[in-house]
Amino acid sequence: MHMIMTTKKIIVLLACLMLVIFSQAQTITSPNNELTLSFHLTDEGTPQYSLTYKGKAVIKPSTLGIELTRGASFLNNFEITETKETETNTTWNPVWGEQKTIVNHYKELLITLNQPSENRTLLVRFRLFNDGLGFRYEFPKQDHLKYFVIKEEHTQFQLAGNHKIFWIPGDYDTNEYAYKTSKISEIAAIQKEGIEYISAQSPIETTSVQTPSMMKSEDGLYINIHEAALVNYPAMALEVDPETFAMKSHLTPDAVGNKGYMQTQTQTPWRTIIVSDDARDILASNLILNLNEPTDYQDTSWIKPMKYIGVWWEYFVAGKSTWAYGKENNVKLSDDFTKLTPNGKHGATTDHVKEYIDFAAENGIDGVLVEGWNIGWEDWIGNWKEEVFDFVTPYPDFDVQELKVYAASKGVQLIMHHETSASATNYERRLDRAFQFMADNGYHAVKTGYVGQIIPRGEHHDSQWMVNHYIHVAKRAADYKVMVNSHEAVRPTGLHRTYPNWIAQESARGTEFEAMQGLNPDHTTILPFTRLMGGPMDFTPGIFQTDLSYYGIGSTQRVNTTLAKQLAYYVTMYSPLQMAADIPDNYKRFSDAFQFIKDVAVDWDNTYILEAEPGDYITIARKAKGKDAWFVGAITDENERTATVDFSFLPEGEKFIATIYADAKDASFDKNSMAYTITKVVVTSKSELKQWIARSGGFAISIKAPTSKEELKGLKRIR
Amino acid sequence: MHMIMTTKKIIVLLACLMLVIFSQAQTITSPNNELTLSFHLTDEGTPQYSLTYKGKAVIKPSTLGIELTRGASFLNNFEITETKETETNTTWNPVWGEQKTIVNHYKELLITLNQPSENRTLLVRFRLFNDGLGFRYEFPKQDHLKYFVIKEEHTQFQLAGNHKIFWIPGDYDTNEYAYKTSKISEIAAIQKEGIEYISAQSPIETTSVQTPSMMKSEDGLYINIHEAALVNYPAMALEVDPETFAMKSHLTPDAVGNKGYMQTQTQTPWRTIIVSDDARDILASNLILNLNEPTDYQDTSWIKPMKYIGVWWEYFVAGKSTWAYGKENNVKLSDDFTKLTPNGKHGATTDHVKEYIDFAAENGIDGVLVEGWNIGWEDWIGNWKEEVFDFVTPYPDFDVQELKVYAASKGVQLIMHHETSASATNYERRLDRAFQFMADNGYHAVKTGYVGQIIPRGEHHDSQWMVNHYIHVAKRAADYKVMVNSHEAVRPTGLHRTYPNWIAQESARGTEFEAMQGLNPDHTTILPFTRLMGGPMDFTPGIFQTDLSYYGIGSTQRVNTTLAKQLAYYVTMYSPLQMAADIPDNYKRFSDAFQFIKDVAVDWDNTYILEAEPGDYITIARKAKGKDAWFVGAITDENERTATVDFSFLPEGEKFIATIYADAKDASFDKNSMAYTITKVVVTSKSELKQWIARSGGFAISIKAPTSKEELKGLKRIR
Repeated sequence: MHMIMTTKKIIVLLACLMLVIFSQAQTITSPNNELTLSFHLTDEGTPQYSLTYKGKAVIKPSTLGIELTRGASFLNNFEITETKETETNTTWNPVWGEQKTIVNHYKELLITLNQPSENRTLLVRFRLFNDGLGFRYEFPKQDHLKYFVIKEEHTQFQLAGNHKIFWIPGDYDTNEYAYKTSKISEIAAIQKEGIEYISAQSPIETTSVQTPSMMKSEDGLYINIHEAALVNYPAMALEVDPETFAMKSHLTPDAVGNKGYMQTQTQTPWRTIIVSDDARDILASNLILNLNEPTDYQDTSWIKPMKYIGVWWEYFVAGKSTWAYGKENNVKLSDDFTKLTPNGKHGATTDHVKEYIDFAAENGIDGVLVEGWNIGWEDWIGNWKEEVFDFVTPYPDFDVQELKVYAASKGVQLIMHHETSASATNYERRLDRAFQFMADNGYHAVKTGYVGQIIPRGEHHDSQWMVNHYIHVAKRAADYKVMVNSHEAVRPTGLHRTYPNWIAQESARGTEFEAMQGLNPDHTTILPFTRLMGGPMDFTPGIFQTDLSYYGIGSTQRVNTTLAKQLAYYVTMYSPLQMAADIPDNYKRFSDAFQFIKDVAVDWDNTYILEAEPGDYITIARKAKGKDAWFVGAITDENERTATVDFSFLPEGEKFIATIYADAKDASFDKNSMAYTITKVVVTSKSELKQWIARSGGFAISIKAPTSKEELKGLKRIR
Repeated sequence: MHMIMTTKKIIVLLACLMLVIFSQAQTITSPNNELTLSFHLTDEGTPQYSLTYKGKAVIKPSTLGIELTRGASFLNNFEITETKETETNTTWNPVWGEQKTIVNHYKELLITLNQPSENRTLLVRFRLFNDGLGFRYEFPKQDHLKYFVIKEEHTQFQLAGNHKIFWIPGDYDTNEYAYKTSKISEIAAIQKEGIEYISAQSPIETTSVQTPSMMKSEDGLYINIHEAALVNYPAMALEVDPETFAMKSHLTPDAVGNKGYMQTQTQTPWRTIIVSDDARDILASNLILNLNEPTDYQDTSWIKPMKYIGVWWEYFVAGKSTWAYGKENNVKLSDDFTKLTPNGKHGATTDHVKEYIDFAAENGIDGVLVEGWNIGWEDWIGNWKEEVFDFVTPYPDFDVQELKVYAASKGVQLIMHHETSASATNYERRLDRAFQFMADNGYHAVKTGYVGQIIPRGEHHDSQWMVNHYIHVAKRAADYKVMVNSHEAVRPTGLHRTYPNWIAQESARGTEFEAMQGLNPDHTTILPFTRLMGGPMDFTPGIFQTDLSYYGIGSTQRVNTTLAKQLAYYVTMYSPLQMAADIPDNYKRFSDAFQFIKDVAVDWDNTYILEAEPGDYITIARKAKGKDAWFVGAITDENERTATVDFSFLPEGEKFIATIYADAKDASFDKNSMAYTITKVVVTSKSELKQWIARSGGFAISIKAPTSKEELKGLKRIR
């Protein structure tokens, strides 16, 4: 009898063993063993984690915690009650994307924490992939916690050095800043000098940067911090300590200063740290997508990547047309807009849209976006006005029915525009009717806009209510089989996996700025490492008439790229929704270059990151979905360079014809920017092309199998 | 030639004349000459008005003005550029109401003010009726003013003395306070002692009262201050100066502290001052309705006053049923509610609702309200939760389709309930679907609820955004031919003229409080002078089982009226929507008294205020619409009294049978409260009835022509 231990004693013994175990760090390694995550509790019972890559510190010991508005916070006094390690290795196929098949391989460490003083449970779930770490806080259903309100999340990212960082300032309302490149230690001083003016901005008062935050260490580690699956939670910025190189989460507050209304059986978004010593791995990462939930849409056949043109760029540069129909500048939705005095420059007229439809039909462009079709534009911005647009009433010179019939007869999709003027509540109250109007009139895609100060007043573009709003719009759109391309919305976090009809977003400084403050030559070498980490961007490339003095608008403003670089964007700036943003006249003038836009795919079987350095250059090849067609894009910053294209992504043993759209020898973004060459060559999987790129230039290549041997005749072969 | 004045000179001369004219006060009198309004500018160019009644000061010189958040305000430096006097005398017929025909007779003084420093124009429009004054600020379209934001409205009401006032404290979110009666000078001290706790309240920090504000001067003037046509503007409370007896407008702020987003070609609501030396004139006034816009609904045939019962009171007192279906207390809309553990006490079951339908059908009651039919009630209140209800998903034990068929077969309307938990944004985003669901399932009326802190967070029940919300709901409901009965909404301002499907509101302390903190015996002698000035109240009268110990719930709580007083409410508490609020069992127990509720009309050809003194007693007679049937209701406060009913409202020369439902001799609200007598008598237009009323008691009379002379036999005749 005395040798038999009671069950109780065994439990006590196990508990002791576990205390021993848990007082040591919990450690897991990535499937390839290159990354190591450690977790332990500090003496105060505060959760702490660290991350290494090939033995180098990526994140030094950093604490985790969430501060609540009332009662005890989730900051300390925790005990580990359970740890669980698992490994998952699966694949899945996105509805659309950069790859046909995505590998989802990670090791997971799930830590169950108890806060004895409160009798509350908090989980921290880590997923360690070969290319980085994701982790989140989880709040299971429990007896002593039901609702809580977050005052601030205190997730630290203690960086290991004074890295180079590509950053825009933390802001609750806009992502449309120009990127700056500096040391972490320099951010505070630069921000103190003054933050660029962007309309309706709300810069964070403390020194901070937005995510995705791209960094490079002195010893060559590329580190990207962002978040995945931002649902029912405010977006996160990162506060920066210039001395310790510590970053810390800073959530977007709501109208009363709170930062998240939570009900248990919930979780935060994933905090993501992607890391490699090869910059190409950052661009190739699917970590953020893998951390999002699969879609539960039963039917996704109606979701189709597409190219489009639009009545749009002419509003910015051509000076010949306007969104507004009337001359008046004090209008209300309740006015009779047929009584306005036409300003004579309205862009979205039936006849003008027909010209766009004709051009799209003639050139195999799928869709035509029409902005300025609906009443309200005379007086739409800057007044925090509750009801600016109704989304269903066209201007008197825009015949919805006639255009429906005309577009259908030409096989062209019309794309609706819903500018909300940031009055999200007005949009929500009219949403079903707006989408029903679209369905009734044959529209299957909408571009939404949120220009201005948000209504509900006091909310922000990035606050929890608005985060929920964008998802609500995407889901509601799905009910009507409508694809959504949101502009001025919170930056993406991979939710297009879950809501694949939320097909693209802006959420960064896009082409429109080429007609305003301008885009820096290195801008598009940074965006794929930052903004695009979360999801596709409707960057609206394709401006051929890069010298804007052409329009005689007396501006010295120019598009800061060569024409060829604009072509390269269709490959380097991934989006399933790609605009050919220039006006049709310019495509007619450069019809040989336009051929690339006509040919390029918008959905892909595979993607090959050939060269990449943030802020400097990017070269990418992609294989068109379900087709033996490949496309290459290469861009550089303000410096010329020679790119190397290794064609080993091509099937072995075959010859292909590559059409190279490149900068002319004397081209550069600021001189002779529209000079390009088009060359056809023969390539195989063994070819390697050295191709010069002009200052802020680029090149694009389309590759296909020859239809006959004749086609190869006389073409130079690249070895 | 030298004798001819140029046009320019004539204008100069006229301008001089006008300056002389305008430097004097502008004065108009009411059509009956009893009221006089004066307007002039102070030396600072500040607008000022005053009002007298039969030579007595009602409002002593009081300034007008509006303070803006930016730039010069509309406070001073005005010049009068034009004044215009007109008289209007018309009649109109409301869709439903206390009268078939309403006279709209007033003199109008329209003052055009110029602010030369700003080159801006402001109009002040006064309408002087025989029973009071309405005025508002108007902002016409103009070159130098388009948008502005109001910091505060500074409309003074300088009272002439330390009047008695019936008041509840100013609060941005609730009107459900118990009324207090005091001198104006005493308000501050009483409020300093502490303001009654009401959930989700936001008492104004300065000493203030809500409107409608009812006062009585020492020399017997009855003065009522309120507002009419509250549209796209925050609701107004009144700040009170205890020493000067000056009141001043205090608007409800939004989430960022602003008090009104304005675009020119707009106006404020009307500020109303109803005055008489006979309290009955206050109750009889149609001034507020007259100041609202006529409806533009083309078809109003679907708007029908009605009586209803409901699965409702049993939730408060019977203790036998609940809104919620499940035992769980941590649920989300996304949960599968069919998986919950039933709590066994759910009220809105198919079978139980059928019992209500049966009772309604048997007793000629038009409708049955069902609360607790839809998922979410387990966990609906107090957490500022964005999505509590979806308004379209019934609990598993509530069969919408079966009840639709059953109710229709019995000729009974089901009334939908939409509790929003104050998440107005959630309601708006689901509104079309909720109303479509109603239309699909045969519902033509909805009770809405706004319990809790408003979402958009930081907004208030009475702020501009919410004011717009309620109107939006009413208009959207009209699209589906749905009548709206809103609870916890901003108090009404006569908008039921414009939106006649917004058929009733709560917006005050109603019968539900009889089961909670209680209603004072004088409460319903005050409400018609305050809350009901703006529009009908869904007070939900008809509690027969006034002694709540009957339910064995161990409470000493009682309904603070006699049973007969509850009957009187169907006449004294005007509403086109009248609930018989008690549970059917109690009506079966007192079926002879219930006969009055079955008989009483809900729409009227005419109304006769026979006796009235705020806080003391009210006696009203009304003629049923389109029928030779009259109903009388009389109530008193905590004191017994003998009411006098002068039957001269009856057609001359005819005999009628009056059935009198009166307090029994030994009845009072706190003892033997359910004792009543029913007596039939003969009355003519010359009859005068002296009828005793118990403490917090009342009586009700239904009057009709005899169907035969036989019916009159043996009945006592009232001389």
